[in-house]
Amino acid sequence: MHINELIEKKKHGQDLSSEEIHYWIQGYLKGDIKDYQVSALLMAIYFQGLNEKETYDLTNELLHSGDTVDLSSIQGIKVDKHSTGGVGDTTSLVLGPLVAAAGCPFAKMSGRGLGHTGGTLDKLEAIQGLSVDLSVQDFIKQVNEIGLAIAGQTANITPGDKKLYSLRDATQTVDNISLIAASILSKKIAIGSDALILDVKVGDGAFMKTKEEAEKLSTALVKLGKAFNRNVMALITSMEEPLGQAVGNLIEVQEAIRVLMGQGPQDLEDLCLNLGAKVLVLAKKFDQEDQALEALKETIKNGQALAKFNEMIKAQGAQIDAQGLLDQDLSPLLGQVTAQEDGYLASLHALTIGEAARRLGAGRLSMEDVIDPGAGIYLVKKIGQKVTKGETILELYGKDSSEIQEIIQDIQAGITYSKDPVQAPTLILHEVR
Amino acid sequence: MHINELIEKKKHGQDLSSEEIHYWIQGYLKGDIKDYQVSALLMAIYFQGLNEKETYDLTNELLHSGDTVDLSSIQGIKVDKHSTGGVGDTTSLVLGPLVAAAGCPFAKMSGRGLGHTGGTLDKLEAIQGLSVDLSVQDFIKQVNEIGLAIAGQTANITPGDKKLYSLRDATQTVDNISLIAASILSKKIAIGSDALILDVKVGDGAFMKTKEEAEKLSTALVKLGKAFNRNVMALITSMEEPLGQAVGNLIEVQEAIRVLMGQGPQDLEDLCLNLGAKVLVLAKKFDQEDQALEALKETIKNGQALAKFNEMIKAQGAQIDAQGLLDQDLSPLLGQVTAQEDGYLASLHALTIGEAARRLGAGRLSMEDVIDPGAGIYLVKKIGQKVTKGETILELYGKDSSEIQEIIQDIQAGITYSKDPVQAPTLILHEVR
Repeated sequence: MHINELIEKKKHGQDLSSEEIHYWIQGYLKGDIKDYQVSALLMAIYFQGLNEKETYDLTNELLHSGDTVDLSSIQGIKVDKHSTGGVGDTTSLVLGPLVAAAGCPFAKMSGRGLGHTGGTLDKLEAIQGLSVDLSVQDFIKQVNEIGLAIAGQTANITPGDKKLYSLRDATQTVDNISLIAASILSKKIAIGSDALILDVKVGDGAFMKTKEEAEKLSTALVKLGKAFNRNVMALITSMEEPLGQAVGNLIEVQEAIRVLMGQGPQDLEDLCLNLGAKVLVLAKKFDQEDQALEALKETIKNGQALAKFNEMIKAQGAQIDAQGLLDQDLSPLLGQVTAQEDGYLASLHALTIGEAARRLGAGRLSMEDVIDPGAGIYLVKKIGQKVTKGETILELYGKDSSEIQEIIQDIQAGITYSKDPVQAPTLILHEVR
Repeated sequence: MHINELIEKKKHGQDLSSEEIHYWIQGYLKGDIKDYQVSALLMAIYFQGLNEKETYDLTNELLHSGDTVDLSSIQGIKVDKHSTGGVGDTTSLVLGPLVAAAGCPFAKMSGRGLGHTGGTLDKLEAIQGLSVDLSVQDFIKQVNEIGLAIAGQTANITPGDKKLYSLRDATQTVDNISLIAASILSKKIAIGSDALILDVKVGDGAFMKTKEEAEKLSTALVKLGKAFNRNVMALITSMEEPLGQAVGNLIEVQEAIRVLMGQGPQDLEDLCLNLGAKVLVLAKKFDQEDQALEALKETIKNGQALAKFNEMIKAQGAQIDAQGLLDQDLSPLLGQVTAQEDGYLASLHALTIGEAARRLGAGRLSMEDVIDPGAGIYLVKKIGQKVTKGETILELYGKDSSEIQEIIQDIQAGITYSKDPVQAPTLILHEVR
């Protein structure tokens, strides 16, 4: 077998066998197969695609390229959630405590990445004293004791995916449904939860720009998950404007706490309750979604959801609780974006707001960048709301004001107004099972 | 500008600007742009193609990636020839002396490559004492004095093409017409001949397997040559069986000498006379091809062509002349391939015979391999000839007999017979101007 034979086959649209995909990933990890050969193969895959079996085989190879985490010693049906990423996506910090409070163990291990804001791990690290570096043993122990842990990948999870993803990122071969699906699911399957809910974002602030693409990815993910005998479903949700009102790290933690107290923005609460209800049914904790929904709402009302949040952060070393976090100051207010017209907010360019948050210090362009936990953006108004010229739409927090005028201008360029009333975007677009 | 933007554009079938192609090749040569990025771009080009302008721009960048050779100090209209490569392709060693004897300066600089047999340079080096390492100054001087030189590239010709070709070879991105055309013509344009004739081989022993592909490549090459203001044409010729009767180095030199003496195989003589007549008209030495053909035949008859060959090899240091070369022994006869049936030879698998010659020591798999000048294959019979069971079809010469039985079997597996008479393949299929 030779990698050039695989490239040649894929160039001509032929299928790769399980043995060939094994040879490719193993050879690449050992260094026998070179970056420049794999990037040529990836580009051929971009044009010719992978069929379901090839996608399964690739996922399987990536999944077994490193450690797998066996959660079978955790009692109950463990649930996990993954989002394809958007702007201001505070969901996991809300969903975990909610689901755990409703009696279903929530066990999430995240990787770190680049992005407009830090990932879930960076948001958690905005909490003083908290560590996300749990050993697998401690992770399992914590889920067994309090029903909830969100931690980093201390184990060597899917190194094959890490290496392949870096190459894809450097060679414009990220945007292929099969490669995306294999990357996402290899990581999730390597950590043995029973039920998995996928939040596939669509819109200008998401990786999938159209509903068709999101639909394709969701279908591929669900099929692939089932092929690995996982109880999996996907929810396609809108990412035309940031989710909730907060974009950043500490600011999103504060927002998550408000949602758990029943005082959060409606869209974020709705999404978390929906994801939660569906995953509880998926995990067979409830027969009906409306029962699950009621149970989740009850955990907010009776304070159990918030208590679960406090339990989790305490277990992971936090020297502060939810109330303390709410009282904590963000970085200084550097500027505001104000309405340029009277009318209804018609669009807020989510991607530009994400980019702005990163420039304020909330995210990373390269892994060496240091995040300012207090940096971020607060959305006073969202799409559909009425504004008066001069009124504040967004508040910008950070430590470095040198670029603030450009940031304000860039955000303003993405905002449009309407004289007529505008509907807020529909958040939950479709579900794929 | 960033290489990833170029990859993204090409992925989506968009055209690259002159500036973008300049940035790509310059950045790649400097090492700022990496192999794995370029291989992804090359694979995108394989799928999306390059238009005429892009192909021109790429050729131009490769051409200017190193030294160019100015032949303007040579009097007369300089001609050059390039073959896309086949098995037993002795043409240049015959064509050079023929054309020079007819009064047109022939100035050919070749690179070294891998292959079934050595290239023209290796064939020349089978001549005792001869050097192909002429300085550009000596090369020009020799063409001015005797009208003929075939030398290696002592100048740093198209290093960009060398680097890009190595990568294409390692990533299955060789077989794109635009990339092939840019690679061939950048080298040819870098050496300033006035008229250029291209021998585009087609058939199982050639790189182009079908007439359609050969037609496309020829058209691309001729268009590209004209865009660089060169007087260029292409001849599409058959490569179903080896050209002439000799495959090797010394054995092909001996065959070339026999053609120059009017005693060579008909197909090789026909091709050389045709290429010669066409290039003489292209160089405006003659108005009509039939006049040029007569003149070339006359140089064979009156001994001027052979004398020109002797002049050239003497000028380049040979310690032997044509007659001495004819008297020289090949490596030992290791074995023979004999007819398995009575009948007419219907096919001789050219590629297998080429491979066999390499295994006998006539060619290289890697640049470190040392060629045995005396190794090679003599075709006693060719397609269309009548054979009797047991009669010798090919003779195999070499120094290492360890693999000889496998080699004989492999060649035999490629030979087919017919009870009915078979036509020899038509050699000259089409011309493209």
